[in-house]
Amino acid sequence: MALRSGVKSIRDFRFFANTLKTYSTSGPLINVAVNEKTGVATATLQRPPVNSLNLELLSELSNTLTDLEKNKCRGLILTSACSTVFSAGLDILEMYKPDLNRAKQFWTTVQQVWIKLYGSSYPTVAVLNGHSPAGGCMLAISCEYRIMLNNFTIGLNETQLGIVAPKWFIASMLNTIGRRQTELALTSGKLFKTDEALQVGLIDEVAANKDEAIGKAERFLQKFANISPLARDLTKKSLRGEAIQDLINNQQKDLDNFLANVTQEKVQKGLEIYLESLKQKQKK
Amino acid sequence: MALRSGVKSIRDFRFFANTLKTYSTSGPLINVAVNEKTGVATATLQRPPVNSLNLELLSELSNTLTDLEKNKCRGLILTSACSTVFSAGLDILEMYKPDLNRAKQFWTTVQQVWIKLYGSSYPTVAVLNGHSPAGGCMLAISCEYRIMLNNFTIGLNETQLGIVAPKWFIASMLNTIGRRQTELALTSGKLFKTDEALQVGLIDEVAANKDEAIGKAERFLQKFANISPLARDLTKKSLRGEAIQDLINNQQKDLDNFLANVTQEKVQKGLEIYLESLKQKQKK
Amino acid sequence: MALRSGVKSIRDFRFFANTLKTYSTSGPLINVAVNEKTGVATATLQRPPVNSLNLELLSELSNTLTDLEKNKCRGLILTSACSTVFSAGLDILEMYKPDLNRAKQFWTTVQQVWIKLYGSSYPTVAVLNGHSPAGGCMLAISCEYRIMLNNFTIGLNETQLGIVAPKWFIASMLNTIGRRQTELALTSGKLFKTDEALQVGLIDEVAANKDEAIGKAERFLQKFANISPLARDLTKKSLRGEAIQDLINNQQKDLDNFLANVTQEKVQKGLEIYLESLKQKQKK
Repeated sequence: MALRSGVKSIRDFRFFANTLKTYSTSGPLINVAVNEKTGVATATLQRPPVNSLNLELLSELSNTLTDLEKNKCRGLILTSACSTVFSAGLDILEMYKPDLNRAKQFWTTVQQVWIKLYGSSYPTVAVLNGHSPAGGCMLAISCEYRIMLNNFTIGLNETQLGIVAPKWFIASMLNTIGRRQTELALTSGKLFKTDEALQVGLIDEVAANKDEAIGKAERFLQKFANISPLARDLTKKSLRGEAIQDLINNQQKDLDNFLANVTQEKVQKGLEIYLESLKQKQKK
Repeated sequence: MALRSGVKSIRDFRFFANTLKTYSTSGPLINVAVNEKTGVATATLQRPPVNSLNLELLSELSNTLTDLEKNKCRGLILTSACSTVFSAGLDILEMYKPDLNRAKQFWTTVQQVWIKLYGSSYPTVAVLNGHSPAGGCMLAISCEYRIMLNNFTIGLNETQLGIVAPKWFIASMLNTIGRRQTELALTSGKLFKTDEALQVGLIDEVAANKDEAIGKAERFLQKFANISPLARDLTKKSLRGEAIQDLINNQQKDLDNFLANVTQEKVQKGLEIYLESLKQKQKK
Repeated sequence: MALRSGVKSIRDFRFFANTLKTYSTSGPLINVAVNEKTGVATATLQRPPVNSLNLELLSELSNTLTDLEKNKCRGLILTSACSTVFSAGLDILEMYKPDLNRAKQFWTTVQQVWIKLYGSSYPTVAVLNGHSPAGGCMLAISCEYRIMLNNFTIGLNETQLGIVAPKWFIASMLNTIGRRQTELALTSGKLFKTDEALQVGLIDEVAANKDEAIGKAERFLQKFANISPLARDLTKKSLRGEAIQDLINNQQKDLDNFLANVTQEKVQKGLEIYLESLKQKQKK
């Protein structure tokens, strides 16, 4: 744990190296801490109870990713402050009876987060210390490496909710587990248990607890310590750039598509039933 | 076998749900039976001795696929009435000294069958109760799942016959076993034995006999019973749609290509030798 | 070893079959020997100490590949005369303080070698009797099959040197080990040991020594002895053609890109440091 002893708040980040600029966007929903020795940032999602991705959390994440890019971050560990959930995915309340302007902003921010995280110049690891369905899985598979604790689940289970994962969520899944396993998983909305996820390659390592997982994440990032960040970035872009460009070229169309879907009466009815079932669960 | 006890002929299909329209195309070369409880159709190829895919069988299959689509089928099991062959592939007689008009119709129908089967809105399983070379393999890998009995073979072995699998056959193979295994298999015209096919992912399960295989197929389809057919369909299209669109965009060119190849003297000579060898085999 | 007993120098190649034309380009840096019975050519790189790919070696290889194509070669085994290195990759001296005209010729020849080897009509095997980093790995993964001796390493480790593997090197890697493993390997510049390479599919077989490896290569090529070369070639092109066409369409841009990179002061400084470290090693 020696490496982590140097971790301080984000405000110390600018002292890490003389190329760093001032951070301004650390907010209440994400804790960002930077290891001064290694240049690795740990971003901890902290919107209890389940880190639902609403507009505010996504905006903070989007800003954090931009700042890490500007500040020549050498690696990102993305994890959760909640005890059993990494992230429950996109916040249903953003889609239920939505205000049109906010809905536009919401989806545009989801797009931005994916573009920035999937295409980050610095290496990225998800430490999955809890369940990672749907949008939670999207964050995980947009990183370059995944370490998961036992007895949780991960997957793009959108079809189970009657909705469809966007093409760019699917691009990240194809990048991770290939075409055959992606088709089997997504058509059935499969949530993989930790051991199943490891077997299919959806995660890379299993850890007994969060501390061990963070240690493994640091060892993964350590591999890149002596590698030219520019050469690394261009190589990553060679592999991920096409999918990212595809969304950038179709961003408006993708937004229109989201708005057209989410405003359908049938979809709204489905969300209402789902929200009602969540309320019943909470009462118990 | 409780599930299957409700299976009746295709004429009962319209009673399955009030959204169903009348079937009109069940024919002599394919038996279509629908389970009224589950909405799953079983289509059994019955053109002895080896279910060679001639124009008539392909036309019937194409019509069946259209009808299943119209009738909101909830799943298809594709299998064979022959005891040792699923399908021997495209009927060589359609290509030997062909009538030009019939050859055009033949190839267009092969294209249609692939487009409809590979892109079906409902889930599909092939129960491979016999050998599945070439066009037989194409039908199998256009389904979403494959269950095979022991001691049979499957593969796109076209190069062994001196011909070339069309790009869209290859797209289905890539979708199933990935690029590396596809290249190794297709350049050598490899036929995989049941256990080899399982190992490489060309089939998903092995069964001891046809009844067991049908049971496994039903369990696979059962996974989708509670999933929105529309969300499922759009997800499948996200993964398979590009390859399908590619053929649709190049359908005439692909047809011209087939006709140009099949009318070559060299190819005709090859087919003649092959047909002669089949005759010699039958005499023994 | 019976098969190899018929091997003579390249000058005998024209007698192999009456379709063969005269060879004219066998040179001092590659020994080309053809088995008259099988039509298989063995090309042995012989530029000690480490088969660095300079303009002369690449030009000879490019000419050899063209001649094999013209002479309807039935298979190529590519190997090394050096005892511990297959090829150390592109010769750094071609990139350090380069003459612009020679640099243009150099890169254009690298492109030509890849286009001809990756897209060869005949089957190709690399017998890796030594280390195969960077450009050495590119030659290996442009073949269709790889047999490697124990205790060597292989990989596209460009990022370790602060440079970036071109998109077409990466295409060959994707074709061999898939997207996930390619990303993990290339971003970290990983060199795989023989057993790791086998496990990930970067090589296909391991051999105890070069003779055994050549025997295995011949057995692999034997598979194609009775297969129509034309059908085989068209099938291979169906799988590899798109990546090749992509380079052909962007050849000038790719060259400009190389020249812009290699003439950067930062890159020159990096190469200088690297060359200095090589000199220090040689002194010891």
